[in-house]
Amino acid sequence: MTKHQFFRRAVGAHDVHIKISYSGICHSDIHTAKDEWGAKKYPLVVGHEIIGNVVAVGASVTKFKVGDVAGVGCMTDSCRSCGDCKQGEEQYCSGEGGMHGTYGSDRPESLHPGGVTQGGYSSDIVVDENYTLRVPANLNCAAAAPLLCAGITCYSPFKHYGLKAGMALGVVGLGGLGHMAVKIGAAMGCKVTVFSRSPAKKEAALGLGASSYVVSSSEEEMKAAQGSLDFIYDSVAFPHAMTPYMATLRRDGTYVMVGGIPQPMTDIVPFALIAKRIKLGGSLIGGIKETQEMLDFCSKHNITSDIELIPADPSAVDAAWERATAGDVKFRFVIDTQATLKE
Amino acid sequence: MTKHQFFRRAVGAHDVHIKISYSGICHSDIHTAKDEWGAKKYPLVVGHEIIGNVVAVGASVTKFKVGDVAGVGCMTDSCRSCGDCKQGEEQYCSGEGGMHGTYGSDRPESLHPGGVTQGGYSSDIVVDENYTLRVPANLNCAAAAPLLCAGITCYSPFKHYGLKAGMALGVVGLGGLGHMAVKIGAAMGCKVTVFSRSPAKKEAALGLGASSYVVSSSEEEMKAAQGSLDFIYDSVAFPHAMTPYMATLRRDGTYVMVGGIPQPMTDIVPFALIAKRIKLGGSLIGGIKETQEMLDFCSKHNITSDIELIPADPSAVDAAWERATAGDVKFRFVIDTQATLKE
Repeated sequence: MTKHQFFRRAVGAHDVHIKISYSGICHSDIHTAKDEWGAKKYPLVVGHEIIGNVVAVGASVTKFKVGDVAGVGCMTDSCRSCGDCKQGEEQYCSGEGGMHGTYGSDRPESLHPGGVTQGGYSSDIVVDENYTLRVPANLNCAAAAPLLCAGITCYSPFKHYGLKAGMALGVVGLGGLGHMAVKIGAAMGCKVTVFSRSPAKKEAALGLGASSYVVSSSEEEMKAAQGSLDFIYDSVAFPHAMTPYMATLRRDGTYVMVGGIPQPMTDIVPFALIAKRIKLGGSLIGGIKETQEMLDFCSKHNITSDIELIPADPSAVDAAWERATAGDVKFRFVIDTQATLKE
Repeated sequence: MTKHQFFRRAVGAHDVHIKISYSGICHSDIHTAKDEWGAKKYPLVVGHEIIGNVVAVGASVTKFKVGDVAGVGCMTDSCRSCGDCKQGEEQYCSGEGGMHGTYGSDRPESLHPGGVTQGGYSSDIVVDENYTLRVPANLNCAAAAPLLCAGITCYSPFKHYGLKAGMALGVVGLGGLGHMAVKIGAAMGCKVTVFSRSPAKKEAALGLGASSYVVSSSEEEMKAAQGSLDFIYDSVAFPHAMTPYMATLRRDGTYVMVGGIPQPMTDIVPFALIAKRIKLGGSLIGGIKETQEMLDFCSKHNITSDIELIPADPSAVDAAWERATAGDVKFRFVIDTQATLKE
């Protein structure tokens, strides 16, 4: 991680120029930097949990004005013409090259100087207004930044896979995504159980809104939880055993995985899915409309992320990445971009 | 496999005594006999695709009379009081010991002399009328026997996971279950694609109602099929690669596994599920009410299984098991029980 100067495109008719205030640190940034999701063009600026102030708008912009607080998540454009885009599922865009990832996506030089998109660990960003989110006024901006990826990555599968009030939700992995899943799941009216390898996070989990806590390394506690859940949200970002968690689901339970694990899972026994008609599904962030809906939901329920704020200093970010990889953060690092990246 | 004499219980007030005419050979019988699903009490009589004639009814029986054609599938009772049973999902009965499997299920001596249920490779069976199915008159009895397991094992997940007319359905594995999936899927109005390792079964697949055929060992054909399907029905009964089939699904596609594979699958990459929000689900036969609905659906569409009829002779059954294991049957063996098991 080093400081690096680059250019954004000039503000186009439909563009919003955002002075970035805060940028969350997502495990995706680390996956990407380690080339775990394929090699990327360098230099690369990561970061896709972006909140800042609108400092300029293009002539045709109608949704934002200078001074607004705006957010940018994991994509900054898409083809807009495929079936996925038309259905508001731009994250699954099946146009050429798919959605335009906020960073590391090969795109025309005219739109992204250098030929690749550059993310939020930076001072400024220029984004089409249709891929820019309104940040509700009651949310703390620094703590709201992680909603743009971590928040929507819970909210969208909860809606898509039919999580309902009154259901028993299990959250595997109490990190950036997991702690948002506890907050959003509880706000949706679910009884939330957190699974964690040690008792260390119990108090924190209950404080976030969980009503029970299961130490996954305890055979006894795992046994007691068998057949008790309707829905599991698994955000663990590295290969791990799934069978023990699957056993905690009831008939017709849903097991959603969102951790972008590049390796295959090796303990999925078809019989386990068959015996209780369990479904295992994936989910990728959410569409733009749904991301706005999530922000408005969080506004209504006064939900933001629990964060540790750090300066946009290469060594501070490196150290945060190491701690995030070790799971040592409560619960999301956010870079104080504006305060530390002076021109 | 040897001949063996045993006794059924006396016909109780709610029981139907069926003289078995035909009994299908299901891969479950082979899994069970090989102890692949856990050790069983011996001697054991397998078989759970049973059709025959009612020869006696208990005093309180209202749904059947002597002379009726009746069927018995994979279960002959369940607790009847758990939530699963009350919802008509007796196959997932969460009462003690679960559903009463038609064979190999430890049950009271009073109901099952010997203390274990015994299946359909036999001359007679006594079953509670509530777990007995009506076989529509227009269906050939021998060819309808496999509907009781193979048929419902397609029909139930098709309904549960939302297969609809107009969808593109892929069938992986053209065996007993797979060929029923083609027939039932086509009758539901789907465009059916069959995947098979060699071109050998192409003509048969098209004859069953498939509209396309993909040789799964051909990289080119698999590539051409990418992103083309809404639903995959995978009935392969041994460990196999799933990633290539998953790639043939569209966004929000459903991949259903019904093969009771005891080993874990080793190539399920979370990213593959995430990138297109694919769900992977299991399914176990179907409830009694749904099994009747399936028989009535098959009656309406004049669907039965394509079968090879064999005598109830130990060596003939052994040979059929070997051929079934090798996938060498078009498409289901059925034992001509009544003609060959004379008293």
